[in-house]
Amino acid sequence: MPVRALWYARGALSILDQRELPRRTHVRRLTTLPEVADAIRTLAVRGAPSIGVAAAYGMVLAHRAGTYSPSRAARELGATRPTAVDLFHGIEFVRRAWEAGDDPLAAADAYRARIVEECHRIGTSGAPLFRTTRRVLTHCNAGALATVEWGTALAPLRVARDRGAHLFVWVDETRPLLQGSRLTAWELARERIPHAIIADNAAGHFFRTGQVDAVIVGADRIARNGDFANKIGTYEKAVLAHENGVPFYVAAPWSTFDPTRASGAAIPVEERSEAEVLAYAGRPTAPAASHARNPAFDVTPAKYVTAFVTPSGVVRPRALAGAIRRAARPTA
Amino acid sequence: MPVRALWYARGALSILDQRELPRRTHVRRLTTLPEVADAIRTLAVRGAPSIGVAAAYGMVLAHRAGTYSPSRAARELGATRPTAVDLFHGIEFVRRAWEAGDDPLAAADAYRARIVEECHRIGTSGAPLFRTTRRVLTHCNAGALATVEWGTALAPLRVARDRGAHLFVWVDETRPLLQGSRLTAWELARERIPHAIIADNAAGHFFRTGQVDAVIVGADRIARNGDFANKIGTYEKAVLAHENGVPFYVAAPWSTFDPTRASGAAIPVEERSEAEVLAYAGRPTAPAASHARNPAFDVTPAKYVTAFVTPSGVVRPRALAGAIRRAARPTA
Repeated sequence: MPVRALWYARGALSILDQRELPRRTHVRRLTTLPEVADAIRTLAVRGAPSIGVAAAYGMVLAHRAGTYSPSRAARELGATRPTAVDLFHGIEFVRRAWEAGDDPLAAADAYRARIVEECHRIGTSGAPLFRTTRRVLTHCNAGALATVEWGTALAPLRVARDRGAHLFVWVDETRPLLQGSRLTAWELARERIPHAIIADNAAGHFFRTGQVDAVIVGADRIARNGDFANKIGTYEKAVLAHENGVPFYVAAPWSTFDPTRASGAAIPVEERSEAEVLAYAGRPTAPAASHARNPAFDVTPAKYVTAFVTPSGVVRPRALAGAIRRAARPTA
Repeated sequence: MPVRALWYARGALSILDQRELPRRTHVRRLTTLPEVADAIRTLAVRGAPSIGVAAAYGMVLAHRAGTYSPSRAARELGATRPTAVDLFHGIEFVRRAWEAGDDPLAAADAYRARIVEECHRIGTSGAPLFRTTRRVLTHCNAGALATVEWGTALAPLRVARDRGAHLFVWVDETRPLLQGSRLTAWELARERIPHAIIADNAAGHFFRTGQVDAVIVGADRIARNGDFANKIGTYEKAVLAHENGVPFYVAAPWSTFDPTRASGAAIPVEERSEAEVLAYAGRPTAPAASHARNPAFDVTPAKYVTAFVTPSGVVRPRALAGAIRRAARPTA
C-alpha cells in the first residue's frame, strides 16, 4: 500500500498524525479551520507540499462553516508556519475559487491532484540520476508523508528502485524532531528499500570515507536564484557534499519555487520552541538552567546545488529562473 | 566547586557516573579492574584524558588484587575502547612502574597530576585566543568531566572568562549520546557561563549567518601530521568553520598526540552499538525494521585546523611535528 499523508471525504480532512509515527499509525479527522491550523502548527501534518494541501482543505472547511470571510480564513491558516511557501500557494488557490464564487472543494481537490501528479513527474524525471548510483543520503522527510503521495526527494528513488536500481539510503535522523528516523525510515521500511539511520553528526564521516554517492533533499521554499530553505541541517550536508565532490540534488514541485524572492536572504526562517531541543522522546536531556536555540530551517546558497529535480525535468541552478518563468505560464 | 570527574582513595576509584548526568550526580566506587573496564566501555567515565587516568588507576587495582600480571591487566584495560590514545598512555605509564617494582599508585597519581596540570596550562596558553572573541562553538564534552579537572576545549574558555572575557558558548547537543547537552551544558550552567544548546544540525545555520566567532574542541588522538580523531560530527564542524572563515582550534594534553601515527588514516575508529542511535532512554525512535550505523568518532584532516592549543602554547599545524618531538623529550 502506498503511503497517503491526508485525504478529504464527507466534510472532514483525515490526516495520518505524523507526531505518532512510527509508534502507531493514527488517523485524525479534522472538521474545522482551527483544527487544521493546529495540526499544521504542531506538525501533525508537515512537509511543504502536504501543508499546502492541508491548508487548501482548511479553506474548504472554513467555507463550509459559513462564518469566515475568505481573507480571514487565509490569514488564520497563513499564520501557522512562515517558511514553506506551499502553504500560501494552497491557501491562495482555494481563496481565488471561493472569491470567484466557484466550488472551493473542487479547487482544493484540483490543487491536491496537481501536487500528487507533479511529485510523480519528479520521480520519473529524477529516476535516471539514480540508475547507477548506489548509496544516497537524504535529510529530514521528503517522502509521501511530506507531499501527500510519492514524495519529492524519495520519488526518484522509488521510481529508480522500481526500474531495477539497487539503492541504499543513508537516513539522517534529523534532530530535533527526528523526521528522518521516525518518518523516512518508516516509509523505506514499508517498501523494503535498504537503508541505515545515522546520527546527523555521522554524515560527514561517510562523505569523507567515500560512502555517499549522491544527496537528495526536498525544500520548503526556493528563491529565484536557486537559494533554498529546507529543514535545519540541510546547509551542512550541502557544504559537505560540495567539499567531497558528491552531487547534491533538490527535488520540489513548482509550488515550492517562489519567484517573488530574489535570493535566500528574503526567505523567513521559523524559530520553534526551545523545548524541542531540550528533550528527546519526551524526556529532558539538558540541565534545567540551560537554554536552547531552535531554528527549524536553514538557507542553502544555490552554489552548493548540482541540480533541481522538478516536474518538468532536471534543471541546473543557472537555468532555474527561465524554468520558473516557463512553469508559471498558464499553458504550462 | 570545580568539577572533578574521578578521584582515588583507600583502594577505590570513585567516578562521577557520566551516564546519569544531568539528571543526578551519582558517584560510583570501583574496586576491581573489571569494574573500571566496564565503566570505560559503557561511558560511565569518558573523554580521552579521563579514561587514560581511569585506566591508570585500573592498573593500580589490578596490582592490588594480586592475581594479574602487568601485561594481562594492560591487555584487558586496553581492549575497552580503541580510538583514544590516552587510554594506552595511562596504562603504559603505570605498567612501567609496576614492572620496575615501583609503586603503581604513585605512578597513577603522578599521571593524574600531569594531566590536570597540562589541562590547566592549556587554559592559560589558550585563553588569549578568546580575549575578544564573543561566541564560541564547541562539540561533545571536552570539559572537566572529560579530563579529570579543567577540561581541554573548555579550559581556555574558563580562564578567559575568569580574566574578564564576555563569552557565549554554542553547545552542540552531540548525538547520539548527547555529551554536549548533558555534560558540557551542565558544566557551563554550574559556572554560570552563558550558553545555548543547539541541535547539531543547527551549527551550520549559525556559522552562515555570522553568529559563530570561533570553534574549540578536544581530541581523542592526534596524528603526527595534525589529522585528529574526535567525537563523531567534529569533521562536519571543521569543514563548516573553514567554509565560513571561522577559526577552528583543537585543545589537548600531550598524551593525546600520537607520534606513532603518520596521519589520520592510521587512527582506528570505534563503531558502537546501533541501539545508541535507534532509541533513547529505552524508548525506540525508529521503526523496528530499520537498522543504524554508529561510528563514535571521525577523523578531521589537519588542513581544517587553525591551531592546536597545547600545554606548551598555541601551535600551528605546520609546526606540530617539531612541537611533539620537543614535548616527548624527557627534559620537557
